[in-house]
Formats: sequence, structure tokens, C-alpha cells
Amino acid sequence: MSENAPIDIEVILSPTSKINQVDFESITFGSTFSDHMLQCDFRNGSWEKPIIKPYEPFLIDPSAKVFHYGQAIFEGLKAYRDAHDKLWLFRPDQNYDRFNKSAIRMAMPEVPREIFLDGLKELLKIDQQWAKGGVGNSLYIRPFMIAIGSGVIAAPSTQYRFMILLSPARSYYSGTVKVIVSEYYSRAANGGIGAAKAAANYGAQFYPTKLANEKGYQQIIWTDDATHGFMEESGTMNVFFRVNDTLLTAPATERILDGVTRKSIIQLATDNGMKIEVRPVAVAEIIEAAKTGELKEIFGAGTAAVINPIVGFGYRDDYYELPEQADSFALKLKSQIIDIQYKNAEDPYNWTVEVPLT
Amino acid sequence: MSENAPIDIEVILSPTSKINQVDFESITFGSTFSDHMLQCDFRNGSWEKPIIKPYEPFLIDPSAKVFHYGQAIFEGLKAYRDAHDKLWLFRPDQNYDRFNKSAIRMAMPEVPREIFLDGLKELLKIDQQWAKGGVGNSLYIRPFMIAIGSGVIAAPSTQYRFMILLSPARSYYSGTVKVIVSEYYSRAANGGIGAAKAAANYGAQFYPTKLANEKGYQQIIWTDDATHGFMEESGTMNVFFRVNDTLLTAPATERILDGVTRKSIIQLATDNGMKIEVRPVAVAEIIEAAKTGELKEIFGAGTAAVINPIVGFGYRDDYYELPEQADSFALKLKSQIIDIQYKNAEDPYNWTVEVPLT
Ligand SMILES: Cc1ncc(COP(=O)(O)O)c(C=O)c1O
Ligand SMILES: Cc1ncc(COP(=O)(O)O)c(C=O)c1O
Repeated sequence: MSENAPIDIEVILSPTSKINQVDFESITFGSTFSDHMLQCDFRNGSWEKPIIKPYEPFLIDPSAKVFHYGQAIFEGLKAYRDAHDKLWLFRPDQNYDRFNKSAIRMAMPEVPREIFLDGLKELLKIDQQWAKGGVGNSLYIRPFMIAIGSGVIAAPSTQYRFMILLSPARSYYSGTVKVIVSEYYSRAANGGIGAAKAAANYGAQFYPTKLANEKGYQQIIWTDDATHGFMEESGTMNVFFRVNDTLLTAPATERILDGVTRKSIIQLATDNGMKIEVRPVAVAEIIEAAKTGELKEIFGAGTAAVINPIVGFGYRDDYYELPEQADSFALKLKSQIIDIQYKNAEDPYNWTVEVPLT
Repeated sequence: MSENAPIDIEVILSPTSKINQVDFESITFGSTFSDHMLQCDFRNGSWEKPIIKPYEPFLIDPSAKVFHYGQAIFEGLKAYRDAHDKLWLFRPDQNYDRFNKSAIRMAMPEVPREIFLDGLKELLKIDQQWAKGGVGNSLYIRPFMIAIGSGVIAAPSTQYRFMILLSPARSYYSGTVKVIVSEYYSRAANGGIGAAKAAANYGAQFYPTKLANEKGYQQIIWTDDATHGFMEESGTMNVFFRVNDTLLTAPATERILDGVTRKSIIQLATDNGMKIEVRPVAVAEIIEAAKTGELKEIFGAGTAAVINPIVGFGYRDDYYELPEQADSFALKLKSQIIDIQYKNAEDPYNWTVEVPLT
């Protein structure tokens, strides 16, 4: 497909809409879906024609490789409605590029730009009513790809399905977040798939996270699996530490997801004149800084919650409460990024991309 | 459910059988399935009634957790037909126990014994014609469980589906196997899910294995991810090294699948009076032994191929060819274990379990 050719999509519209049955005020993240979805299959070495059709279950063979060998990747981004009723994506190219990096690592075919990005815009045009206005409201976008070829032998599939789902989301308030620094469990191996947004990375976290929940922590800060001496990331967020007036965050190694929010925050912080160091962050230095009072803030950064302040963390037998900050970096950066996302501020970086609605 | 109660299964028989369309002489591993499958769903905190029904695709929501968060586990075992036309399982309790260990690690519900083991026997009774006689022929059994609850939020599902598929298999000859010792990629993290038979562990291996294939190796011997200094396992097999007359194999740590074949071989080797050491196996000592000629054999052990001799291995820029052995330990152990599986020898360990066919 050429870069500029308009993409050829089959569209089957739903005869009815579910939208009036949805209470947009009381939506749980990720549980409500719009009227349509995009679907595109890969067979015989190439991508077939994408189709937009009513959201519905599909038939799949019980021996499909996704069930047995975990060949599955996804992305997560949002569409934001501005005060003039226009619809915007935030850095969708980043998600597109990361999706294909994940695809390569999971031995899956790369998805063409037209199918992913133009297909997404087409889907958004059709289901635009599902993107509600008002800061905090957004339409969460879930592109994903699964191996649908059948056969219970551990080898890559030859058939894949790429899909995009849309899920309306409210301002994500996850309550007070306390995290525990992992001493035993880990999320990713050196030379593993930690940097890929592979389904495989998430199910593996559920059991350790359940154990953390039982101890009163909402999330785990993952550490490197070899020494557990360095802070990596948390659940579905990258993590930042503010020590005095310096922000610290781990480099996006092969074990860490290179977050779009993280990237944007590094840029914004730099342009704000904040000191920021992207380097391995030792657990020991954070503990030390917590003890001396130099540790001012910890926050998570990711598409769902944008920035999520953390109120305290556990490590071994101790709990470290973080002091409230009058000049919170987390809140300052959060409002800056949200202002750009909702077009309430200049976007000097050209991060926002308008979705044509007609 | 009580341990001895006969299990209540709904049975829907297929009106026709596909068996006459199958050429049992030219079957590819894992690609042909029998007429029926077992299915049992977990909802509202408990397991529903299992059902045996015709093998067929099923409907699933595009937001099912298995697609997005990789909550999926499986097992693999075989049914063997003996010379008197009886059907036998090999240590099915081991697979049952391991399945539930995997379930716990992936935050999935444990499957009751009756559903897994009695359900399997019932399914085998119905599709018994699919288990052909003759050493080498077998009926490969694939129990698996997937998260079918919907919602794109990274948290455990509340709904699951357990299934058993049957796939007739021929003596598995994978050709001459050369392996490469991994120096960069790895299979499992410390504190990760390497010891679980989770779908997530397999898709992650496909890309590095493809790179190995391009260099002329069929498989990778995974090393520990922290130092790449110790031999772990290979593809879907545990690995044994024979140095002089001593067999070496890695302990079943949290990074390694505790193979049933491995376990059985350790027992048989011990009872044969072979020296066997279960301990970390350094890459360096194997290279050294290869150079001095003390490395006599390497072989993989797993349900599919039982024992798979390896003819040589690559490490860094060198290739080490293994000498042919007149008194191969691999072949001796293989014939002993196969004789037990097909009831051509005494089974002093009570490893075999008869499947009632009427
Ligand atoms: C493991 C992990 N880390 C970090 C992030 C944050 O990435 P992004 O800012 O691109 O959403 C995510 C995705 O949400 C994630 O799944
Ligand atoms: C990663 C891995 N290692 C080893 C094995 C061997 O285990 P078993 O002998 O129980 O088949 C398997 C399964 O086949 C496996 O998937």
C-alpha cells in the first residue's frame, strides 16, 4: 500500500446504537465498548482488506495459537474532545511504532500504517459520538493483534487478526495509590519481552499484584530481576521519583516499556527547566532519600491515568509515607500534559493529531 | 466435588466422524484433532458442568482477557495404545498438579481433579478410535485454560474456560537437532513465570528461535538471564548433558519447567546405576568438556519427542559437534521409558494409568 493512498475499508454499520443505554457518568475503565470495531486479518503472507463492523464476539478455533502460545500484543491510546468539539489523538505515531516493535519481538507481522492509523481514524469518525467532551473524559483506544492460526505446536502462527476497539473512559481516579517495591517477583527478564506491549507481560503480574493488594498496596514497583536493586516500572505505568528538585526515572531498557507519557513528561520537565536524570535508579538511594526527607514525590505515568501520584511505598518491613507537596511536580506536569491533550494550551511539539469527523 | 463421585458430564456426540478423512501415516504434530473436545467454564466463583461436544470453533468477545493480558495455561501429555489394545496415560497426576501450579501463578482458578482427570478419561473413551496402536503412535492430549471474561483493564478475569483437545501423533522425529546456547535472549526471569506452563512463555521464544533457525540451529538452549552462564532448558524440552559417564541437568528452579519426562529420566537413570547430578550446569564446563572430548551426549527430554538426541551445539562463534556414541545413554533411556509407556516392560513405579474404554 502506498503511504498516501486512501485506505480501502469495508464498512458494515450497526443497525442500532447502544449509546443511549450507556451511563457515561458511571463508566468503569475498559468495560464499555462503542458500536463498531475494526478487524483485519493476515493470511497467506499479506493483510486482507480491513473491515469496520458492529462490535460483536467472533468465532475462533480452540487450537488457535493465541490460546496456547500467547502470541498477542496490544496498544493503548486515547482520543480527546476539545472545547470546540474537535477530536484529537495524542502522539498516535508513537503507539503505531511501538506496536510494530512489539510485533517483531513476538514474531508477528507488522501492521501497515494505513490499516492502523487511517483505519483508526475511520473507526473514530463512525463512532465519534462515543467521545464525550469535558476534561477527564476520553475515548480509550485498544488496537491489538492475536495469532488465530490453529495447531498445538509451539511455532509462530501464519494467521493473525488485528483489531481496534473503542472504550469510553472517565477521568481515571484510582484512589490513593501505595506501592510496594518488589524483592522477589519480577516482570521481565534480560533478553526477554519486557519492552514489548505483549499480553504475556500482564497476566504474569496478576498473582504478585494480588499478594501486594493483600498487604494493602495497589501496585508493585518492579525491580530488575537479577538483583532487585533498581527501580523499573509499575503495573501499566512508568515511574518517576523526585529527590529534592531532581526527577529520576529508569532508562527504557529491554525490560521496560518505553511509555509515551514518560517520553512526553521527560520533554515537558526539561522544557520547564526541571532537572531530570534518566538513569538506573537504585532502591537504596530512594530509601536513603526517603529517610532524610529528600524524597519529595513518586508518581506513575501512563495513558490511562496520565500521571498518578503515589502517596507512599513499602520496602521490606517498612512503609515510607511521602509528604504532601505544595509545589507538586506531578500535578504541574499532569496539568501541562492534559492541557496539550485537550487543546487548552499550545502544542509546540506537534503531539496532537486531529481526527477528521466528516 | 468428592474425590470418588463419578463426574457428571453432559455429552453431545458428533453425528459424524472425521476419522476416515485422516491419513494417520502422514500426520503433522498438533494439527489434526479428534471428533470431540471437553469444555468447562468457570463463572461466579465456581466451575459449571463440563460438557463433551463436537470439536468446533467457539464464540468469544474481542475484549476477552486472554487476548489482552495473556491469562492462559496448558498441559501436554499422551495416551498410548499397548499391544493388547488397551489405552494408557503416563503419569497424568503430574500434569494435573503442574496445571494447577500454573493456574495459581497466573492468578487463575484451580481445576478440580474430577474435571481434569475423569473428564479426560471420559473424552478418551468417546474418541478412543483416534489412539492408534504401534510404538511411536500416540494420542497427544492438550488440556488448557483461558480467561474469557471481557474488559480491557489489566486485572485478572472472573471467567475462565477449561478445555481438553485430542490430537493424534506419530513418532516424533524432528530430524537432526543442533542447538545454540543463548548469549543474549532469555526465556524466563527470576521471580517470573518460567516454571509455569503459561502460554506467555512460548510466544516470547519464537523470535529468538527464528534467529537461531536462520543460523542453522533448530533450537536454543536457554541460559539464566542474569549471567547467561548456566544451561537451563530448550524449546519445549529439559536438557541433559553427559560428561564422561555422568548425566548433568539443571535443577527445576522457578525459571524452568519441571518436566515429567525429565523427572522420569532422573529416576530411570538412578535406577540404572548411572551417575546423575541435578545441579546448575555451567556453560563453561560444557565447553571445556566438549574441547577435551569428555562431553559425550546432549539430549532434550519432553512429552512430544520423549528424548531427542542433539548432534551438536553452537556457542559464540564456535560449533561443537558431538561424537556418535555406541552406548548412547539417550537411546537407552528412551527405549526404557517408551517400553514403560507402551506396556512392553514392567512399570515398577506405577507411572501408567489405564483408561477404561467401556
Ligand atoms: C508496562 C507498562 N509500562 C508503562 C506504560 C505507560 O505507557 P504509555 O505512557 O505509552 O501509556 C504502560 C502502558 O500503559 C505499560 O503497560
Ligand atoms: C518449556 C518446557 N520445558 C520442558 C518441557 C518438558 O516437559 P514434559 O516432560 O512434562 O513434557 C516442556 C513441555 O513439553 C516445556 O514446555
